Amino acid sequence: MAVTEGEPIGIVAGGGSVPLHVAEAALRAGRKPFIVAIDGEAEEGIAAYPHEVLKWGQIGRMQSVFVAHGVKELVMIGNIRIRPDFSKFKLDLGAIRVIPKVLALLKNGDADLLSGVVTIMGELGFTVIGAHEIAPELVATEGPLGRHKPDTVAGRDIARAMRAARAIGVIDAGQAAVAINGRVVAMEAAEGTDGMIDRVGALRRAGRLKWSGRRGVLAKCAKPQQDLRVDMPTIGPKTVRAAAEAGLAGIAVETGRVMIVDRDDVIELADRAGLFIAGETSRADVE
Amino acid sequence: MAVTEGEPIGIVAGGGSVPLHVAEAALRAGRKPFIVAIDGEAEEGIAAYPHEVLKWGQIGRMQSVFVAHGVKELVMIGNIRIRPDFSKFKLDLGAIRVIPKVLALLKNGDADLLSGVVTIMGELGFTVIGAHEIAPELVATEGPLGRHKPDTVAGRDIARAMRAARAIGVIDAGQAAVAINGRVVAMEAAEGTDGMIDRVGALRRAGRLKWSGRRGVLAKCAKPQQDLRVDMPTIGPKTVRAAAEAGLAGIAVETGRVMIVDRDDVIELADRAGLFIAGETSRADVE
Repeated sequence: MAVTEGEPIGIVAGGGSVPLHVAEAALRAGRKPFIVAIDGEAEEGIAAYPHEVLKWGQIGRMQSVFVAHGVKELVMIGNIRIRPDFSKFKLDLGAIRVIPKVLALLKNGDADLLSGVVTIMGELGFTVIGAHEIAPELVATEGPLGRHKPDTVAGRDIARAMRAARAIGVIDAGQAAVAINGRVVAMEAAEGTDGMIDRVGALRRAGRLKWSGRRGVLAKCAKPQQDLRVDMPTIGPKTVRAAAEAGLAGIAVETGRVMIVDRDDVIELADRAGLFIAGETSRADVE
Repeated sequence: MAVTEGEPIGIVAGGGSVPLHVAEAALRAGRKPFIVAIDGEAEEGIAAYPHEVLKWGQIGRMQSVFVAHGVKELVMIGNIRIRPDFSKFKLDLGAIRVIPKVLALLKNGDADLLSGVVTIMGELGFTVIGAHEIAPELVATEGPLGRHKPDTVAGRDIARAMRAARAIGVIDAGQAAVAINGRVVAMEAAEGTDGMIDRVGALRRAGRLKWSGRRGVLAKCAKPQQDLRVDMPTIGPKTVRAAAEAGLAGIAVETGRVMIVDRDDVIELADRAGLFIAGETSRADVE
């Protein structure tokens, strides 16, 4: 499929495989992707697509290259390893126009920053859409992924961990929790999902949590107010490795609202380690 | 005041200073304390009171010594460093009568175990009352304790951390949370309050949380369903030291439902480190 056909779509690409996956999916859907790669973040694979590498703060340049390529819709996707250091921003004229807004955003938390970026993009003339709208196969669907399935004990832990993950999402505090043998043992906040899983393993090694075999469930879901266009929760191979290492039985993710990054690797790792990965529809009535 | 006067009160004493504080308060209130000290847990100070040292599982003996001393009401209080190992229980005949119940209790989580113990004590003829009913001064009251007071920024963090602590209490997952600059950064589950505070300090040292000076609030409250007679949440000198070490600005505790252990030390430590300790009435309408 030629890159020159179809309705253009802009991709602002951070790191990892997902931006490339989105570019491929866009091509398959008959779209014409143009990538603005964030310097130091995006993978080399973006070189296979029409692209330009820009630094943080080159907002005016981003706007003009997207306009030059006919982009009206864009996807912002990929890992950001480093929190941008405002003092090192390469500010162009376009950026200076939006600086007052950017400064206001940086004062707030991540969620505000991300939805603020969507607003700014809108003012620059672009509609931000979710990566999952171009590549719906990225998102968790109902039921088990891979070979293993949750048993009855795990089913209870799924319900408990999901309830906890939802409760902390409602108060904008976190999006993941671990339950083992019916008890919530860890909830995620600033340490991040992997940090929380590692803590469960450490508590077990210290003898403060005890179980035999694989037990317990990591649940991950989106906050009710989360802007899924720019901030969909993800699990990936690192999550599976951490869960396996901690001795958990499996991972439950909210269907339609959690992205599974590198799905093939996720399935292979989970199958090999004996973990289930299950898509769960979040229900307020679950005990 | 003579130890031989007044209505008897039984004290089942674990470790720390609180059992002794309760015994003193009972004397002041004209009660006649008799202590059953748990072997390996209770402090030597209990020797100043009529007492008997018993091992885990000597339930029949406990019943008979309390009955012999005219005890009808009892307080169960103090730290239990070691989770009782059922295989090492010294089971007497009184214990054997309640074994089926004890076994059923041990299958469940802590909360169930503790309220189950209250039920068993009731069946043995004793009414369990809270330490705070004998020594109400143990419990947090409204307003600042000590020299320092929360400022406006801290006030917002109090509200956020309290809301998080309440939310995780409702789902029986934990009773403490930390908020910094309006953001919930940690929630307590199996790692315990001190473990959670230490994590905040570690995230700061790793550069994953940034603030200058003292910032952020630890909030602690009881779960709605918590049996305050046997399981009131506590803070003490260790909590203050951990909070000071992590760089927090202060500690907020739910009035009437959190116990302040070693209050004088808590105040002195907090005053010296520049931390506030504030009693906060938990309100569902706090943002």
